[in-house]
Amino acid sequence: MTEENSQDKHQQKMQKIQSTVAKRVDKATEERGILIVMTGNGKGKTCAGFGNIIRCIGHGFNAGVVQFIKGTWEAGEVKFIQQVRPDMPYHAMKTGFTWDTQDKTADIAAAEAAWVHAKAMLANPDLQMVLLDELTYMLSYQYLDLDEVLSAIRNRPVDQTVIVTGRSAHKELVAIADTVSEVREEKHAFRSGIKAQIGIDW
Amino acid sequence: MTEENSQDKHQQKMQKIQSTVAKRVDKATEERGILIVMTGNGKGKTCAGFGNIIRCIGHGFNAGVVQFIKGTWEAGEVKFIQQVRPDMPYHAMKTGFTWDTQDKTADIAAAEAAWVHAKAMLANPDLQMVLLDELTYMLSYQYLDLDEVLSAIRNRPVDQTVIVTGRSAHKELVAIADTVSEVREEKHAFRSGIKAQIGIDW
Repeated sequence: MTEENSQDKHQQKMQKIQSTVAKRVDKATEERGILIVMTGNGKGKTCAGFGNIIRCIGHGFNAGVVQFIKGTWEAGEVKFIQQVRPDMPYHAMKTGFTWDTQDKTADIAAAEAAWVHAKAMLANPDLQMVLLDELTYMLSYQYLDLDEVLSAIRNRPVDQTVIVTGRSAHKELVAIADTVSEVREEKHAFRSGIKAQIGIDW
Repeated sequence: MTEENSQDKHQQKMQKIQSTVAKRVDKATEERGILIVMTGNGKGKTCAGFGNIIRCIGHGFNAGVVQFIKGTWEAGEVKFIQQVRPDMPYHAMKTGFTWDTQDKTADIAAAEAAWVHAKAMLANPDLQMVLLDELTYMLSYQYLDLDEVLSAIRNRPVDQTVIVTGRSAHKELVAIADTVSEVREEKHAFRSGIKAQIGIDW
Protein backbone atom coordinates (compact mmCIF):
# COMPACT_ATOMS: atom_id res chain seq x y z
CA MET A 1 0.00 0.00 0.00
CA THR A 2 1.45 3.40 -0.94
CA GLU A 3 1.59 6.14 1.67
CA GLU A 4 -1.13 8.02 -0.17
CA ASN A 5 -3.45 4.99 -0.15
CA SER A 6 -2.79 4.45 3.53
CA GLN A 7 -3.66 8.09 4.23
CA ASP A 8 -6.89 7.76 2.16
CA LYS A 9 -7.89 4.61 4.02
CA HIS A 10 -7.19 6.30 7.35
CA GLN A 11 -9.32 9.27 6.34
CA GLN A 12 -12.26 7.07 5.30
CA LYS A 13 -12.10 5.15 8.57
CA MET A 14 -11.95 8.36 10.59
CA GLN A 15 -14.88 9.89 8.66
CA LYS A 16 -16.96 6.87 9.59
CA ILE A 17 -16.04 7.17 13.29
CA GLN A 18 -16.66 10.92 13.16
CA SER A 19 -20.15 10.35 11.85
CA THR A 20 -20.93 7.77 14.58
CA VAL A 21 -19.62 10.12 17.28
CA ALA A 22 -21.58 13.04 15.79
CA LYS A 23 -24.82 11.04 15.97
CA ARG A 24 -24.19 10.27 19.64
CA VAL A 25 -23.34 13.90 20.39
CA ASP A 26 -26.57 15.01 18.67
CA LYS A 27 -28.59 12.76 20.97
CA ALA A 28 -27.01 14.20 24.13
CA THR A 29 -28.81 17.49 24.52
CA GLU A 30 -29.64 17.79 28.22
CA GLU A 31 -27.64 20.24 30.34
CA ARG A 32 -27.78 19.99 34.14
CA GLY A 33 -25.71 19.12 37.16
CA ILE A 34 -25.00 15.42 37.49
CA LEU A 35 -24.19 12.99 40.28
CA ILE A 36 -20.82 11.30 39.77
CA VAL A 37 -19.78 8.33 41.93
CA MET A 38 -16.13 7.23 41.96
CA THR A 39 -16.01 3.88 43.74
CA GLY A 40 -13.93 0.68 43.76
CA ASN A 41 -10.76 -0.41 45.56
CA GLY A 42 -8.14 1.20 43.29
CA LYS A 43 -6.04 4.36 43.57
CA GLY A 44 -7.37 7.55 42.03
CA LYS A 45 -10.84 8.21 43.43
CA THR A 46 -10.00 11.21 45.63
CA CYS A 47 -7.55 12.52 43.03
CA ALA A 48 -10.28 12.28 40.38
CA GLY A 49 -12.62 14.21 42.68
CA PHE A 50 -10.12 17.02 43.22
CA GLY A 51 -9.10 16.99 39.56
CA ASN A 52 -12.72 17.62 38.65
CA ILE A 53 -12.98 20.37 41.27
CA ILE A 54 -10.07 22.32 39.73
CA ARG A 55 -11.49 21.69 36.24
CA CYS A 56 -14.67 23.38 37.47
CA ILE A 57 -13.18 26.28 39.44
CA GLY A 58 -10.53 26.81 36.73
CA HIS A 59 -13.38 28.07 34.55
CA GLY A 60 -14.40 30.54 37.27
CA PHE A 61 -17.21 28.52 38.85
CA ASN A 62 -17.56 27.92 42.60
CA ALA A 63 -17.20 24.60 44.36
CA GLY A 64 -17.19 23.16 47.85
CA VAL A 65 -15.48 20.15 49.42
CA VAL A 66 -16.21 18.00 52.46
CA GLN A 67 -13.71 15.28 53.33
CA PHE A 68 -15.09 12.48 55.45
CA ILE A 69 -12.51 10.37 57.36
CA LYS A 70 -9.40 12.02 55.91
CA GLY A 71 -7.96 15.14 57.38
CA THR A 72 -5.55 14.24 60.18
CA TRP A 73 -2.71 14.90 57.75
CA GLU A 74 -2.17 17.82 55.37
CA ALA A 75 -3.39 17.03 51.86
CA GLY A 76 -1.34 18.59 49.04
CA GLU A 77 -4.42 19.01 46.85
CA VAL A 78 -6.19 21.10 49.49
CA LYS A 79 -3.10 23.22 50.16
CA PHE A 80 -2.82 23.88 46.42
CA ILE A 81 -6.45 24.85 45.89
CA GLN A 82 -6.44 27.13 48.93
CA GLN A 83 -3.58 29.11 47.40
CA VAL A 84 -5.98 30.31 44.70
CA ARG A 85 -9.29 29.97 46.55
CA PRO A 86 -8.66 30.42 50.28
CA ASP A 87 -12.39 31.10 50.68
CA MET A 88 -13.58 27.83 49.06
CA PRO A 89 -16.13 26.17 51.38
CA TYR A 90 -14.14 23.30 52.87
CA HIS A 91 -14.54 20.98 55.82
CA ALA A 92 -12.51 17.94 56.86
CA MET A 93 -13.82 15.45 59.39
CA LYS A 94 -10.25 15.18 60.69
CA THR A 95 -10.77 11.94 62.57
CA GLY A 96 -8.58 9.70 60.42
CA PHE A 97 -9.28 6.00 60.01
CA THR A 98 -11.86 4.26 62.22
CA TRP A 99 -9.25 1.66 63.22
CA ASP A 100 -7.10 4.43 64.66
CA THR A 101 -9.82 6.36 66.48
CA GLN A 102 -11.44 3.17 67.86
CA ASP A 103 -14.23 5.37 69.12
CA LYS A 104 -17.54 4.88 67.37
CA THR A 105 -19.44 7.53 69.35
CA ALA A 106 -16.86 10.22 68.57
CA ASP A 107 -16.67 9.12 64.91
CA ILE A 108 -20.44 9.41 64.53
CA ALA A 109 -20.44 12.86 66.11
CA ALA A 110 -17.67 13.96 63.72
CA ALA A 111 -19.56 12.48 60.74
CA GLU A 112 -22.70 14.33 61.73
CA ALA A 113 -20.79 17.59 62.16
CA ALA A 114 -19.24 17.13 58.69
CA TRP A 115 -22.66 16.33 57.26
CA VAL A 116 -23.98 19.72 58.46
CA HIS A 117 -21.40 21.34 56.16
CA ALA A 118 -22.21 18.98 53.29
CA LYS A 119 -25.95 19.64 53.62
CA ALA A 120 -25.39 23.40 53.50
CA MET A 121 -23.32 23.01 50.32
CA LEU A 122 -25.98 20.76 48.72
CA ALA A 123 -28.50 23.55 49.33
CA ASN A 124 -26.30 26.34 47.97
CA PRO A 125 -27.14 27.31 44.37
CA ASP A 126 -23.90 29.31 44.11
CA LEU A 127 -21.87 26.08 44.13
CA GLN A 128 -21.59 24.44 40.71
CA MET A 129 -19.75 21.45 42.14
CA VAL A 130 -19.59 19.73 45.53
CA LEU A 131 -17.12 16.98 46.35
CA LEU A 132 -18.11 14.62 49.17
CA ASP A 133 -14.86 12.71 49.53
CA GLU A 134 -15.14 9.28 51.21
CA LEU A 135 -18.84 9.75 51.91
CA THR A 136 -19.52 6.12 50.99
CA TYR A 137 -17.98 4.89 54.25
CA MET A 138 -20.34 7.06 56.32
CA LEU A 139 -23.20 5.15 54.71
CA SER A 140 -21.68 1.66 54.93
CA TYR A 141 -20.79 2.20 58.62
CA GLN A 142 -24.30 3.66 59.10
CA TYR A 143 -22.79 6.79 60.63
CA LEU A 144 -25.17 8.89 58.55
CA ASP A 145 -28.80 8.25 57.66
CA LEU A 146 -29.05 6.95 54.08
CA ASP A 147 -32.43 8.54 53.36
CA GLU A 148 -31.31 11.94 54.58
CA VAL A 149 -28.16 11.82 52.46
CA LEU A 150 -30.01 10.65 49.32
CA SER A 151 -32.72 13.24 49.82
CA ALA A 152 -30.22 16.11 50.18
CA ILE A 153 -28.42 14.98 47.01
CA ARG A 154 -31.68 14.55 45.07
CA ASN A 155 -32.99 17.97 46.10
CA ARG A 156 -29.83 19.92 45.31
CA PRO A 157 -29.89 22.87 42.86
CA VAL A 158 -30.45 21.55 39.33
CA ASP A 159 -27.16 22.95 37.97
CA GLN A 160 -25.04 21.56 40.78
CA THR A 161 -22.80 18.57 40.10
CA VAL A 162 -21.99 16.32 43.06
CA ILE A 163 -19.05 13.92 43.23
CA VAL A 164 -19.05 11.16 45.83
CA THR A 165 -15.93 9.03 46.32
CA GLY A 166 -15.12 5.93 48.35
CA ARG A 167 -15.21 2.15 48.18
CA SER A 168 -18.39 0.07 48.16
CA ALA A 169 -20.83 2.80 47.14
CA HIS A 170 -24.34 2.01 48.42
CA LYS A 171 -26.56 0.59 45.67
CA GLU A 172 -29.19 3.29 46.21
CA LEU A 173 -26.54 5.97 45.69
CA VAL A 174 -25.44 4.21 42.50
CA ALA A 175 -29.08 4.04 41.40
CA ILE A 176 -29.57 7.82 41.49
CA ALA A 177 -26.12 8.59 39.98
CA ASP A 178 -25.66 9.73 36.37
CA THR A 179 -22.03 8.66 36.04
CA VAL A 180 -20.48 5.82 38.01
CA SER A 181 -16.85 4.76 37.61
CA GLU A 182 -15.51 1.73 39.38
CA VAL A 183 -11.79 2.21 39.96
CA ARG A 184 -10.43 -1.33 40.11
CA GLU A 185 -7.03 -2.05 41.60
CA GLU A 186 -5.01 -4.07 39.09
CA LYS A 187 -1.76 -3.35 40.92
CA HIS A 188 -0.81 -1.17 43.88
CA ALA A 189 2.74 -0.08 44.74
CA PHE A 190 1.97 -0.49 48.46
CA ARG A 191 1.44 -4.22 48.01
CA SER A 192 4.91 -4.61 46.51
CA GLY A 193 6.58 -2.95 49.48
CA ILE A 194 6.51 0.74 48.55
CA LYS A 195 5.36 2.96 51.39
CA ALA A 196 2.76 5.69 51.16
CA GLN A 197 4.61 8.81 50.06
CA ILE A 198 4.06 12.57 50.26
CA GLY A 199 2.88 14.05 46.96
CA ILE A 200 1.74 10.66 45.67
CA ASP A 201 -0.55 9.34 48.39
CA TRP A 202 -1.50 12.49 50.30
CA MET B 1 -26.52 -4.98 73.63
CA THR B 2 -25.98 -1.88 75.76
CA GLU B 3 -24.32 1.14 74.22
CA GLU B 4 -21.22 0.51 76.31
CA ASN B 5 -20.95 -3.10 75.08
CA SER B 6 -21.40 -1.97 71.51
CA GLN B 7 -18.61 0.56 71.96
CA ASP B 8 -16.34 -2.14 73.49
CA LYS B 9 -17.05 -4.51 70.62
CA HIS B 10 -16.35 -1.75 68.11
CA GLN B 11 -13.05 -0.97 69.82
CA GLN B 12 -11.95 -4.62 69.79
CA LYS B 13 -12.79 -4.96 66.10
CA MET B 14 -10.92 -1.77 65.25
CA GLN B 15 -7.84 -2.82 67.28
CA LYS B 16 -7.71 -5.99 65.22
CA ILE B 17 -7.93 -4.06 61.94
CA GLN B 18 -5.36 -1.57 63.21
CA SER B 19 -2.91 -4.37 63.91
CA THR B 20 -3.42 -5.89 60.43
CA VAL B 21 -2.93 -2.50 58.79
CA ALA B 22 0.17 -1.81 60.93
CA LYS B 23 1.75 -5.08 59.80
CA ARG B 24 1.17 -4.18 56.16
CA VAL B 25 2.56 -0.66 56.70
CA ASP B 26 5.67 -2.13 58.35
CA LYS B 27 6.34 -4.25 55.28
CA ALA B 28 6.13 -1.27 52.93
CA THR B 29 9.51 0.41 53.43
CA GLU B 30 10.71 1.36 49.95
CA GLU B 31 10.61 5.02 48.92
CA ARG B 32 10.96 5.96 45.24
CA GLY B 33 9.08 7.38 42.32
CA ILE B 34 6.47 5.02 40.92
CA LEU B 35 4.73 4.48 37.59
CA ILE B 36 0.97 4.87 37.86
CA VAL B 37 -1.32 3.84 34.99
CA MET B 38 -4.94 5.01 34.97
CA THR B 39 -6.71 3.06 32.25
CA GLY B 40 -10.20 1.75 31.42
CA ASN B 41 -13.23 3.22 29.69
CA GLY B 42 -14.74 5.18 32.60
CA LYS B 43 -14.74 8.86 33.53
CA GLY B 44 -12.03 10.09 35.88
CA LYS B 45 -8.64 9.14 34.43
CA THR B 46 -7.47 12.61 33.39
CA CYS B 47 -9.04 14.15 36.51
CA ALA B 48 -7.17 11.62 38.66
CA GLY B 49 -3.94 12.55 36.88
CA PHE B 50 -4.41 16.26 37.50
CA GLY B 51 -5.63 15.64 41.06
CA ASN B 52 -2.37 13.84 41.75
CA ILE B 53 -0.38 16.66 40.13
CA ILE B 54 -1.88 19.27 42.49
CA ARG B 55 -1.38 16.90 45.44
CA CYS B 56 2.32 16.85 44.49
CA ILE B 57 2.86 20.53 43.72
CA GLY B 58 0.69 21.53 46.69
CA HIS B 59 3.53 20.25 48.86
CA GLY B 60 6.00 22.46 47.00
CA PHE B 61 7.39 19.85 44.57
CA ASN B 62 7.70 20.39 40.82
CA ALA B 63 5.73 18.58 38.13
CA GLY B 64 5.28 18.59 34.37
CA VAL B 65 2.36 17.71 32.10
CA VAL B 66 2.07 16.62 28.48
CA GLN B 67 -1.41 16.17 27.04
CA PHE B 68 -1.61 13.93 24.02
CA ILE B 69 -4.73 14.31 21.80
CA LYS B 70 -6.52 16.82 24.03
CA GLY B 71 -5.87 20.48 23.76
CA THR B 72 -8.08 22.00 21.09
CA TRP B 73 -10.30 23.32 23.87
CA GLU B 74 -9.35 25.12 27.08
CA ALA B 75 -9.13 22.73 30.03
CA GLY B 76 -10.25 24.16 33.38
CA GLU B 77 -7.68 22.10 35.28
CA VAL B 78 -4.81 23.58 33.28
CA LYS B 79 -6.15 27.12 33.63
CA PHE B 80 -6.36 26.60 37.39
CA ILE B 81 -2.87 25.18 37.83
CA GLN B 82 -1.33 27.91 35.70
CA GLN B 83 -2.76 30.54 38.05
CA VAL B 84 -0.36 29.29 40.73
CA ARG B 85 2.37 27.78 38.55
CA PRO B 86 2.46 29.67 35.23
CA ASP B 87 5.94 28.25 34.70
CA MET B 88 4.97 24.57 35.07
CA PRO B 89 6.41 22.61 32.11
CA TYR B 90 3.31 21.96 29.99
CA HIS B 91 2.67 20.90 26.43
CA ALA B 92 -0.60 20.00 24.69
CA MET B 93 -0.64 18.15 21.38
CA LYS B 94 -3.61 20.33 20.41
CA THR B 95 -4.77 18.13 17.54
CA GLY B 96 -8.03 16.93 19.09
CA PHE B 97 -9.56 13.57 18.20
CA THR B 98 -8.16 11.51 15.32
CA TRP B 99 -11.63 11.26 13.77
CA ASP B 100 -11.76 15.04 13.55
CA THR B 101 -8.26 15.63 12.20
CA GLN B 102 -8.54 12.69 9.71
CA ASP B 103 -4.89 13.27 8.96
CA LYS B 104 -2.59 10.51 10.12
CA THR B 105 0.63 12.14 8.91
CA ALA B 106 -0.08 15.39 10.75
CA ASP B 107 -1.23 13.46 13.88
CA ILE B 108 2.03 11.49 13.96
CA ALA B 109 4.08 14.65 13.57
CA ALA B 110 2.16 16.26 16.44
CA ALA B 111 2.62 13.14 18.59
CA GLU B 112 6.35 13.15 17.93
CA ALA B 113 6.59 16.84 18.76
CA ALA B 114 4.72 16.24 22.03
CA TRP B 115 6.98 13.29 22.79
CA VAL B 116 10.05 15.55 22.61
CA HIS B 117 8.57 17.50 25.56
CA ALA B 118 7.68 14.31 27.42
CA LYS B 119 11.17 12.87 26.96
CA ALA B 120 12.77 16.04 28.31
CA MET B 121 10.51 15.87 31.39
CA LEU B 122 11.33 12.18 31.93
CA ALA B 123 15.03 13.12 31.99
CA ASN B 124 14.60 16.06 34.36
CA PRO B 125 15.48 15.21 37.99
CA ASP B 126 13.86 18.45 39.20
CA LEU B 127 10.42 17.08 38.35
CA GLN B 128 8.93 14.88 41.10
CA MET B 129 5.91 14.04 38.96
CA VAL B 130 5.16 13.88 35.23
CA LEU B 131 1.67 13.38 33.83
CA LEU B 132 1.48 11.91 30.33
CA ASP B 133 -2.24 12.34 29.70
CA GLU B 134 -3.73 10.07 27.00
CA LEU B 135 -0.32 8.63 26.11
CA THR B 136 -1.85 5.14 25.77
CA TYR B 137 -3.49 6.09 22.45
CA MET B 138 -0.15 7.12 20.97
CA LEU B 139 1.02 3.54 21.59
CA SER B 140 -2.14 1.77 20.43
CA TYR B 141 -2.24 3.84 17.21
CA GLN B 142 1.52 3.20 16.86
CA TYR B 143 2.15 6.93 16.57
CA LEU B 144 5.08 6.56 18.96
CA ASP B 145 7.65 3.80 19.23
CA LEU B 146 6.80 1.52 22.16
CA ASP B 147 10.39 0.66 23.02
CA GLU B 148 11.46 4.26 23.05
CA VAL B 149 8.58 5.24 25.34
CA LEU B 150 9.15 2.34 27.74
CA SER B 151 12.87 3.00 27.82
CA ALA B 152 12.43 6.70 28.65
CA ILE B 153 10.00 5.81 31.44
CA ARG B 154 12.28 3.08 32.83
CA ASN B 155 15.35 5.33 32.80
CA ARG B 156 13.72 8.32 34.48
CA PRO B 157 15.16 9.76 37.73
CA VAL B 158 14.55 7.33 40.58
CA ASP B 159 12.47 9.78 42.64
CA GLN B 160 10.21 10.77 39.74
CA THR B 161 6.65 9.49 39.66
CA VAL B 162 5.02 9.15 36.24
CA ILE B 163 1.30 8.96 35.60
CA VAL B 164 0.02 7.66 32.28
CA THR B 165 -3.68 7.89 31.44
CA GLY B 166 -5.87 6.59 28.63
CA ARG B 167 -7.90 3.56 27.58
CA SER B 168 -6.40 0.21 26.63
CA ALA B 169 -2.98 0.63 28.21
CA HIS B 170 -0.37 -1.50 26.41
CA LYS B 171 0.40 -4.69 28.33
CA GLU B 172 4.12 -3.88 28.42
CA LEU B 173 3.35 -0.53 30.03
CA VAL B 174 1.15 -2.29 32.60
CA ALA B 175 3.97 -4.78 33.21
CA ILE B 176 6.47 -2.10 34.28
CA ALA B 177 3.89 -0.09 36.28
CA ASP B 178 3.78 -0.10 40.10
CA THR B 179 0.17 0.99 40.42
CA VAL B 180 -2.50 0.27 37.82
CA SER B 181 -6.13 1.32 38.22
CA GLU B 182 -8.74 0.28 35.71
CA VAL B 183 -11.50 2.88 35.69
CA ARG B 184 -14.56 0.96 34.57
CA GLU B 185 -17.63 2.73 33.26
CA GLU B 186 -20.66 1.51 35.17
CA LYS B 187 -22.77 4.43 34.02
CA HIS B 188 -22.07 7.57 32.01
CA ALA B 189 -24.31 10.64 31.90
CA PHE B 190 -23.56 11.08 28.17
CA ARG B 191 -25.24 7.77 27.37
CA SER B 192 -28.45 8.91 28.99
CA GLY B 193 -28.62 12.04 26.88
CA ILE B 194 -26.63 14.56 28.93
CA LYS B 195 -24.18 16.55 26.84
CA ALA B 196 -20.52 17.16 27.67
CA GLN B 197 -20.47 20.23 29.88
CA ILE B 198 -17.91 22.88 30.83
CA GLY B 199 -16.45 22.34 34.30
CA ILE B 200 -17.51 18.68 34.33
CA ASP B 201 -16.07 17.26 31.11
CA TRP B 202 -13.36 19.77 30.22
